Amino acid sequence: MAAFVTFIRRLPTITLLKGVFPRHPTCTRTMSGAVPQGVSERLWSLGKLNHVAIAVPNLESATALYRDVMGAKVSEVTPLPEHGVYTVFVELGNTKLELLHPLGEKSPIEGFLKKNAAGGIHHICIEVDNITEAVKQLTSSQIRALNPEPKIGAHGKPVVFLHPKDCNGVLVELEEA
Amino acid sequence: MAAFVTFIRRLPTITLLKGVFPRHPTCTRTMSGAVPQGVSERLWSLGKLNHVAIAVPNLESATALYRDVMGAKVSEVTPLPEHGVYTVFVELGNTKLELLHPLGEKSPIEGFLKKNAAGGIHHICIEVDNITEAVKQLTSSQIRALNPEPKIGAHGKPVVFLHPKDCNGVLVELEEA
Repeated sequence: MAAFVTFIRRLPTITLLKGVFPRHPTCTRTMSGAVPQGVSERLWSLGKLNHVAIAVPNLESATALYRDVMGAKVSEVTPLPEHGVYTVFVELGNTKLELLHPLGEKSPIEGFLKKNAAGGIHHICIEVDNITEAVKQLTSSQIRALNPEPKIGAHGKPVVFLHPKDCNGVLVELEEA
Repeated sequence: MAAFVTFIRRLPTITLLKGVFPRHPTCTRTMSGAVPQGVSERLWSLGKLNHVAIAVPNLESATALYRDVMGAKVSEVTPLPEHGVYTVFVELGNTKLELLHPLGEKSPIEGFLKKNAAGGIHHICIEVDNITEAVKQLTSSQIRALNPEPKIGAHGKPVVFLHPKDCNGVLVELEEA
């Protein structure tokens, strides 16, 4: 867990706003599902959108918006001191929003909230069936992983964050489902 | 359609990054599904997450990332000149990512991409079953709608965008399913 905390604190916040052209090669268009040129046989699959993470300056207010005003089912507030966040999950039927609020002095989302005072979307999390193979192929396609070795994420499952500069400015978390 | 274009061009981009504390009242905690204090009987329901919209500087490159490198099923590029965007949908099983790229000289996402050169998450879209009642209640709860009168969105359905300053810095689109 300590390693994960160290890692997640290094997640870029400025790079979500500034960046360069994605570095992966432009592949030729293929039929979806076919093995594209330059990519060896796929040993992993992308799955569902697990959640959209939203960093919020006031957790009770944000929870009230979705629970009381919009009528969504929400979880209790869960402190995750080892990850430096409080979380509340908003159920949307097919997926969920994950409200994040800083916990402790060096929360990984502190910098993000300093730059985005009202809050904002921090990352999206997509499930994969084999995270080791996913990272291997993504790295070979020049999509950088912020932590090439999967870490145990907030949900107790192996996760890898992909560099926003290589993913259209979006911090993408992959989670082994 | 012209009205929608006019409206969507007025969507805030700077306000996604700068903002104030959400203005809706902090309601008392209630059992999920119960009618909270200060909110009259609910005449609408929140539904699924319809999509996460990502503005991208290079549509072919972004499409290749999800299609060729990640193996996702993607749609063809669809130009929507009346909305000032090209779109590509990335299927994730339970929901989809909507890649947006400017079309025409005055695209509604032009300003966003100027501020976010690498791209970034532009908005999330959540379905509702009755958008008129949704707007009525949200407005009475001091959640501002950018277009109080529903407009016909990119998918041919009535949509309303909620002010990011009232939604934790997130531009939220409601779409009548």
